This record gives sequence, C-alpha cells and structure tokens, in this order.
Amino acid sequence: MNKLFATLPEMEPGWVWLAGAGPGDPGLLTLLAVKALGSADVIVYDALVDQSILALARPEAILEYAGKRGGKPSARQPDISLRLVQLARDGKRVLRLKGGDPFVFGRGGEEALTLVESGVPFRIVPGISAGIGGLAYAGIPVTHRECNSAVAFVTGHDATGAVPDSVDWASLARGAPVIVLYMALKHIGVIAERLMAGGRAGSTPVAVIARATTDQQQVLETTLAKVESSVAESGIEPPAMVVVGEVVRLRAAMDWLGALDGRQLIPDPLGQRRRDQTG
Amino acid sequence: MNKLFATLPEMEPGWVWLAGAGPGDPGLLTLLAVKALGSADVIVYDALVDQSILALARPEAILEYAGKRGGKPSARQPDISLRLVQLARDGKRVLRLKGGDPFVFGRGGEEALTLVESGVPFRIVPGISAGIGGLAYAGIPVTHRECNSAVAFVTGHDATGAVPDSVDWASLARGAPVIVLYMALKHIGVIAERLMAGGRAGSTPVAVIARATTDQQQVLETTLAKVESSVAESGIEPPAMVVVGEVVRLRAAMDWLGALDGRQLIPDPLGQRRRDQTG
Repeated sequence: MNKLFATLPEMEPGWVWLAGAGPGDPGLLTLLAVKALGSADVIVYDALVDQSILALARPEAILEYAGKRGGKPSARQPDISLRLVQLARDGKRVLRLKGGDPFVFGRGGEEALTLVESGVPFRIVPGISAGIGGLAYAGIPVTHRECNSAVAFVTGHDATGAVPDSVDWASLARGAPVIVLYMALKHIGVIAERLMAGGRAGSTPVAVIARATTDQQQVLETTLAKVESSVAESGIEPPAMVVVGEVVRLRAAMDWLGALDGRQLIPDPLGQRRRDQTG
Repeated sequence: MNKLFATLPEMEPGWVWLAGAGPGDPGLLTLLAVKALGSADVIVYDALVDQSILALARPEAILEYAGKRGGKPSARQPDISLRLVQLARDGKRVLRLKGGDPFVFGRGGEEALTLVESGVPFRIVPGISAGIGGLAYAGIPVTHRECNSAVAFVTGHDATGAVPDSVDWASLARGAPVIVLYMALKHIGVIAERLMAGGRAGSTPVAVIARATTDQQQVLETTLAKVESSVAESGIEPPAMVVVGEVVRLRAAMDWLGALDGRQLIPDPLGQRRRDQTG
C-alpha cells in the first residue's frame, strides 16, 4: 500500500483540497483524504469530522474549526471560503475537510466557486456520504432490486433552516421508492406529512440513523406515520440520516454490525411482505 | 497512517467482506478496502474494478472474475452468491469487490441475503459511488444550493436489460432537479424522452461521463434534447454516468481536473442563467 500511496498526487503549497472525511469511521477515509491529512499545513474542518480522523494530521498542522450547526442560518459560509483563499495565498497546503462528501449537501460547490474566483488552485476529494455508507452500517442497502430502481437524496432544511420550499415532496413521494433525508430530524413531522399527502402509506418503514458508522451509532426503526413521535420519545439527536422505504425491512437480514454483537439475522425479511401481497 | 491501519478490523477466515472499490482512481479506495485487498485469500471482482486496484492483492491471493456486462440479463448472479458461500465454507478470507458502492445498483443486497441464508458472516465496506465521486472528477457537484435541494439516482436498465418499468419518470422529472443515471447509455434516448414528457426542457444541461476518475475519463456536455444524438456521434461508451440538471453548468467553473491540464475556469457559470431569468 505504501507504494500506491507514493503514486498519489502531492499537496502543493498554495493549493486547497476540498475533501470529504466520510461518515465517521476512519476506515472509510479514502487514501487521498489520508494523504491530505498527513500533508496539510492547515486543516479547516467541520463539526462532523471525528477526532480520530483529525488525529491523522501532522503534529505541526494547524487545525481550524469551521463548524456550523444544523438548521441555523450559516452567515459564516463566505468567511470560511475567504479564509481558505487567504491561507492558500499565504502559501499553505490547505485541507478543507468536511463530513461525508463535499458535494452532497456539503456546500463544497460554493467554496470551490470562491476559490475559482480568487484564482486559487484546488482539487476535489470525494468522500463516502452518510446517505449511502451510513445506511450500510445500519444494514440498509440504499438500493435493492426487489424494492427500488430509484432513490432520492433530499436535504431537510434550506439556507434559512426551514423545510426547503423548492422541494416538490409529492413528486418525490411518487417518483422515489426510497427517500434518504439529510439534516431532517428537526422538521421530520412536516416532511413525513408531506410524503403521506403525496401518497406514501403511513405504514412505510422508516429508519433514523444517528452518528452513523461511529461507536455511538443509534438506529431507530419506525414508520412514516409514527416517525415524529418515535423520534421525540427516543431522544435521538442530530447528526442523523432518515431513510424512508421498503429497503428498511432488509435491516432484519443485513444488520451485520448488530450480528457482530450477537443479533440473530433473518434471511428473508421481504418474504412476509411478498406473501401478504400474493396471499 | 500505519497505526490507524492496525486498528481496523481483521478479515477472518470464513468471512466475506462485500466491498466497494470506488469509481476507478485507486486514491478513492477506502482504508478498509485496502486492508481487505491486502488480507484476502480470494478476491471475487467485477468488470468495473481497475487493474491498479487488484494489484494491491497479496501475491498468493486468488483473483476470480465475476464480471457482468451492462444491459444483459445476469443469469450468473445466483452462481456468484453461491460461490461466495462455498469459498467462505472452505475457510477462505473472501473479498467480494465491486465497482463503486456495493449497495448503489450493485446487487450487494442480493449477495448479502444469500450469505445470511447460508449463515456466512459478512461485513459491508461502502465505496465511493460514481454518481457522486465520478461527477466530482468531471467538476460537477451532485448538489449545489442554488440549483437543487434534491437529487435522484436511477438505474437505466432492469434485470432484463430494458428501461425499468417500475420507474415513474414523470414524477422524477418533476421532483428531482438533478437526476443521475447509472447504466443508462443504451436507453438514453427513451429516458430523455420520458423526462421531457414529464416536463423537463429539452435545453436542460446533460453531461455524460465515461470511465470516470480513470486516466481514460471522457466527458460529453450536451442537452436533454440532443443527448441521444450526441452520444451516438461521440462514440462514447459504457461504463458511463449521465447527469441531468443545472449543476452541469458548474463544470465550467469546477473542472479542476481540466485545470490541471491548463483549462481556464470561469468563476460564475450560473451568472448568465440568473441574468437571463431576471433580465
């Protein structure tokens, strides 16, 4: 592996790498992200980046926190982008490290546009998004041929912190058998209502996955009709992913992480549904 | 990094790791995938896994090709799953390595169900999906706040190789401002027509990205009305991703890979659109 590592591009002074750190488990870091962590002079990181990942930085590296809270207006976004420009102009090797993937509701595009405007060279390093990898650690496949040929990823809040007006929830309810919601816990009641108004049954399985892939991972299984009250009762907190659709049932078979702790897996969780439909 | 590497779980004999190899660039491998490549006794791999990635296997490892061709019925899927069971029962450390992510139109769920049924223990190792990371290497962010709060991932063919009947293209056309199509090149004309019938303008920007993140990456920019003829004229071939939506315009600013080859980036590619709309 060290041989491969040497073939990866080097971080150069004056450059910014916009990289995703994945959902939390350091094992889900990409080689490029690990290389950047070990090369950067300055790491500008988000709230969702785990300490065990930042521990890979060089001892001399400066770590700058640029976290934002979910749901709040983020007045600081332009400041973060300009800070990246300033650091690059100072000749630093700059790693901008975000949870998940920088382009999946991560505002990486906005930061990249500021870099382009300022003539700062950059590289994008994709990361594992929680909407895929986080679900996998809960034993939920984001697609499964028997369940869905399409999946939608949707953000649960816009720039003002409200449920995005621009989202056509009824069309998504009809068009996407599986819907994966980012940053949606705060407005989950409203979103669930809109999906049900769009035709999704209240009995549609839903899972809420908090701190996915970390030691503190929590998974709550519920239904669309009950998700708001289940979330309130459970006390489950952000950061969390919500997934709506029949694939949630597969967790009974595919909770491999639970199986490591002794959970008995059930081979055919879709079978009962099939028997119900044909019987 | 080697210290972190040592803390990752070990592959044990009789286990199957279902892992994603990412879209092609070895730098996008996860640490867990690299660990598995360096530990496995047998690696059962797909057509989309790059040779440079397989080169990370131990010299003693047995590499078994289990590739399928896009669009063709895959009668061999049950055979592959049963082969994994057989190898695990023989006490091998088995790495099932797929391009992209095993759960994003990768049939990882079907293989996992067979493992559960057979009582074979397994672990899922997510990978970077081409629909996110491949687009990023073409300079296209899959989400961008000014363009979309939702994105849909859709497969362009079903088990028989036809355009999936189960997909409600009209609802997706309305509900998902950005649509990322996997394995859709063969039926791109039909799919584009359905999206236009669902209300999407023929002028909607479209990009086709072949062999994303590899040295042979090709990107074709076109529109929904012209995509079928553009694909035919260009001779671009699978494997390819297709992305439909305004985010494609951002490539003019964010084609960082092109910039490495001297492409001049344009800071505000959405500006003209904004000016057109307000003017």
